[in-house]
Amino acid sequence: MAVVLGPNRYGKAETRVVRVTRDGEAHRLKDCTVGVALSGDMRDVHLTGDNAAVLPTDTQKNTVYAFAGEHGIGEIEEFAGLLARHFVGGQPSVHHARVAVEEHRWERHGPHSFARASAETRTCVVHHDRDGSTTVVSGLEGLVLLNTTGSEFHGFARDAYTTLAPTHDRVLATAVTARWRHTAPPDTPGGYDFGESHARVRRCLAEAFAGTHSLSLQQTLYAMGSRVLETRREICEIRLSLPNKHHFLVDLTPFGMDNDNEVYVAADRPYGLIEGTVLDDAAPAPGPAWD
Amino acid sequence: MAVVLGPNRYGKAETRVVRVTRDGEAHRLKDCTVGVALSGDMRDVHLTGDNAAVLPTDTQKNTVYAFAGEHGIGEIEEFAGLLARHFVGGQPSVHHARVAVEEHRWERHGPHSFARASAETRTCVVHHDRDGSTTVVSGLEGLVLLNTTGSEFHGFARDAYTTLAPTHDRVLATAVTARWRHTAPPDTPGGYDFGESHARVRRCLAEAFAGTHSLSLQQTLYAMGSRVLETRREICEIRLSLPNKHHFLVDLTPFGMDNDNEVYVAADRPYGLIEGTVLDDAAPAPGPAWD
Amino acid sequence: MAVVLGPNRYGKAETRVVRVTRDGEAHRLKDCTVGVALSGDMRDVHLTGDNAAVLPTDTQKNTVYAFAGEHGIGEIEEFAGLLARHFVGGQPSVHHARVAVEEHRWERHGPHSFARASAETRTCVVHHDRDGSTTVVSGLEGLVLLNTTGSEFHGFARDAYTTLAPTHDRVLATAVTARWRHTAPPDTPGGYDFGESHARVRRCLAEAFAGTHSLSLQQTLYAMGSRVLETRREICEIRLSLPNKHHFLVDLTPFGMDNDNEVYVAADRPYGLIEGTVLDDAAPAPGPAWD
Amino acid sequence: MAVVLGPNRYGKAETRVVRVTRDGEAHRLKDCTVGVALSGDMRDVHLTGDNAAVLPTDTQKNTVYAFAGEHGIGEIEEFAGLLARHFVGGQPSVHHARVAVEEHRWERHGPHSFARASAETRTCVVHHDRDGSTTVVSGLEGLVLLNTTGSEFHGFARDAYTTLAPTHDRVLATAVTARWRHTAPPDTPGGYDFGESHARVRRCLAEAFAGTHSLSLQQTLYAMGSRVLETRREICEIRLSLPNKHHFLVDLTPFGMDNDNEVYVAADRPYGLIEGTVLDDAAPAPGPAWD
Repeated sequence: MAVVLGPNRYGKAETRVVRVTRDGEAHRLKDCTVGVALSGDMRDVHLTGDNAAVLPTDTQKNTVYAFAGEHGIGEIEEFAGLLARHFVGGQPSVHHARVAVEEHRWERHGPHSFARASAETRTCVVHHDRDGSTTVVSGLEGLVLLNTTGSEFHGFARDAYTTLAPTHDRVLATAVTARWRHTAPPDTPGGYDFGESHARVRRCLAEAFAGTHSLSLQQTLYAMGSRVLETRREICEIRLSLPNKHHFLVDLTPFGMDNDNEVYVAADRPYGLIEGTVLDDAAPAPGPAWD
Repeated sequence: MAVVLGPNRYGKAETRVVRVTRDGEAHRLKDCTVGVALSGDMRDVHLTGDNAAVLPTDTQKNTVYAFAGEHGIGEIEEFAGLLARHFVGGQPSVHHARVAVEEHRWERHGPHSFARASAETRTCVVHHDRDGSTTVVSGLEGLVLLNTTGSEFHGFARDAYTTLAPTHDRVLATAVTARWRHTAPPDTPGGYDFGESHARVRRCLAEAFAGTHSLSLQQTLYAMGSRVLETRREICEIRLSLPNKHHFLVDLTPFGMDNDNEVYVAADRPYGLIEGTVLDDAAPAPGPAWD
Repeated sequence: MAVVLGPNRYGKAETRVVRVTRDGEAHRLKDCTVGVALSGDMRDVHLTGDNAAVLPTDTQKNTVYAFAGEHGIGEIEEFAGLLARHFVGGQPSVHHARVAVEEHRWERHGPHSFARASAETRTCVVHHDRDGSTTVVSGLEGLVLLNTTGSEFHGFARDAYTTLAPTHDRVLATAVTARWRHTAPPDTPGGYDFGESHARVRRCLAEAFAGTHSLSLQQTLYAMGSRVLETRREICEIRLSLPNKHHFLVDLTPFGMDNDNEVYVAADRPYGLIEGTVLDDAAPAPGPAWD
Repeated sequence: MAVVLGPNRYGKAETRVVRVTRDGEAHRLKDCTVGVALSGDMRDVHLTGDNAAVLPTDTQKNTVYAFAGEHGIGEIEEFAGLLARHFVGGQPSVHHARVAVEEHRWERHGPHSFARASAETRTCVVHHDRDGSTTVVSGLEGLVLLNTTGSEFHGFARDAYTTLAPTHDRVLATAVTARWRHTAPPDTPGGYDFGESHARVRRCLAEAFAGTHSLSLQQTLYAMGSRVLETRREICEIRLSLPNKHHFLVDLTPFGMDNDNEVYVAADRPYGLIEGTVLDDAAPAPGPAWD
């Protein structure tokens, strides 16, 4: 046996940057949290503490701010790509960069005034390698959806520990975490509009959730994912994580009342958790896209 | 010296209730968190553990669900009032009830489909006493507002520990917590529409924040509060808690760049905290309204 | 009617300061979060934005760090008092200061090494007024206690919504938030050791919880409070907030098993919340101590 | 192109179970949060909503409670293994189970009384496949460590965005998340004591952190990991995630004071994040251990 160093990466997490654009009468606002993780020729720093290969995480933070100033923040996938290519191109010891961006949404209230929109965030993860390859995963978190009807659950497997009653009408609610992989790299000539793509994928997800008569949350997950794949040809794979935010009917019979699917407990824990991937069977190999 | 029991109360906190109304084609949805606190003749339970005066907190929870079923959940102030009067009227040992409700907002996505709106919640606290008096405080939490310009801060006091530079153009951002007291009890004949009142108070707050050229967050606070008092005659007092969510300009000069109010760090901690009350000088005594 | 400014205060919240003392072989560590709130002659800043009376919250933050450097951080009540007196003494417009400190606990692992102890924090709130009066409230948060037996709940009031079964053996668990008021001001000649006082009050609370055969959480609350009052003569009043962290017995009969008080669900929400005060009937008036 | 279902799993997350053992005078307490994720022949449920292969997540929750009652909860790795084998053995449609357990720590205060210990949790993830293979990863979260000296950072790479000054004496602090893979399956005859193994790995981590004169957090990470690998032969691989919880020296010169490594700001965000693996080069293939 010999003890060896395995895969590793390092970087600056959760750099909060707000970029105001002051052109014309109405200002524009971008509000992001950026995470950088670099890897490469990092053996010495681990084994001996020699930092010659280490670009400080403080420098990575500075770079986020400087790039926000110099280039502005357009679509987050483009900003992430710009940073990733910079880090790989700038230091011979850095062979690979992973840049993740979360965008926090604001609604306009006036030419210079904004209100924070929902807790939903738009996300992306961009990988860039010194071999020139780039992968782009876009996504969202915190899209909370609920159907008051059109959801059933029955015909399931049973064992000695099964007490659940089948139901033909339940509330179905979830908080969507979705990440989807773009087929082409972001800087392909003739590249598309990431903002438009995101809005359309989001609409597919929300509409498929609302429009699917659901026999299980798995079925809804697949309907959501396949709606995206069939509608948006720039996407070759989507991964969904859907907590089943249980809404239990309250038993009102002790008080002499019926409960005709009207009064629910919204439970916190435990919750069902449904995770699944839907993909194009001709999708290119993902490489590090999901790391 | 003698050790004695002082003020006390007990109840069930954070009962989560979701109420679906299934009349007609489109369902309606109310999603609330309810807190009940009762007080009264509770000496024995503290001193000897005699529970004869104690209506269990489990019963309080049941009552929330039963009332949601029987009466529906209309305006939260009305639902809270209904519960408060029930608890005081139902048990001779209960002399006073405080019922707080938070409402979580959903947007309609279809006849039976909803998406969680912003993290902002609508709140209320209703007190009812066995002497017949009732107080109603409405409010909101989590309304996050930001102006990209129109905010200054200078001319402040200085001492040996002051290093802050005056500024004539800064980002001003806050997360509003506001509570406002209604002049009249909620069940006064000719009472008004609590939903309409809430929407209009909220609009006053947001518009006063956006529309005030600010020399200090205190000035903005007073502008917000006085706008409400002057516009909404049903409100006699408002209390605002405004964290100053600092957005610090990043120094880009080490990288040879100016920063003309474009690139900001959104800081987490520490933060300024501005708290203040604006009221009608003829407001009736608050009684327990703010407890 | 006239719209007027009511009570108000402002300051810097959540200043995080870590103070290392490097005397001798073993370093010492104090880790605190400090909140300052000042009030006084603040009418102009609210009405016109004139900041002449406003010592910036940034200065308050600086003062926390400078005082930590100059004076060290001894007992948090003393550090809070030092700051409060400084702010009131330093600015004629500041008539009153409230300084709150939370201390985060570390355990020693070596002469220069520490590990964060439990999530429990030690707290204090010190008020100082320009009339020379000072109040000191000490406290703790996040002391989570559990008894596996020795707790009953029966003989309670019942109404049409009561379904709870009486129990003669249950798990009793809570997360203690306690605040206690010192009779004398902190700088009284012959003042006592705040650290020793805190440790002894904490022991009273933990021992009274463990040692009380409980017929209700209210009874346990009173036992905890009165143990403190009877044992620690420097304390004249204590306020306790005790969530009843319900542990429900799981019904295992569907699986052919008994559950003899062995398997529990630890529920999150809703929870009972028991709040109460125990005091010396000869306690001096609290003034602003609890604000 | 064809849209197809990719990898998927489902289960019940965050089932909270508290198990009391009432043998003898002193009770024992285990407090765990359990997550189950099953996978296998789940094509139909995704494509058509046919639930015949789906053991409900509600049943999984019931099983956790029933097993806690029947078998008690010993070492969490054993409890997780018992559950994983049960789910795979019990349903032909379930080919693979992943069971994760977090254990919350309590300290004894009396024969039937306990106090919650630190926020640190002990963790494990056990995978079991119908081919008979099992993997066991143990771990911990929330071990917060700090050295007041013995840490340097200099000699790093520089670019146009580098402003960080080299330092020869800094505070080093982190919140350790560690997961380590056991070489042998847990039910190997002659298996070892998981509790003892966990305690010894934890000690290696804490001692290596405290005892390493650090030129970078990467060096400390490797020292921690290699200490475990060299000391504990039952472990073949460890993965560490170490946030660099920055403690910045406060500049006190504006107040005419030095700051000789005594007064620090404990920053929240952003933070460095160092992630790395240390392993035995002869370690068996991990299979699904890290999923």
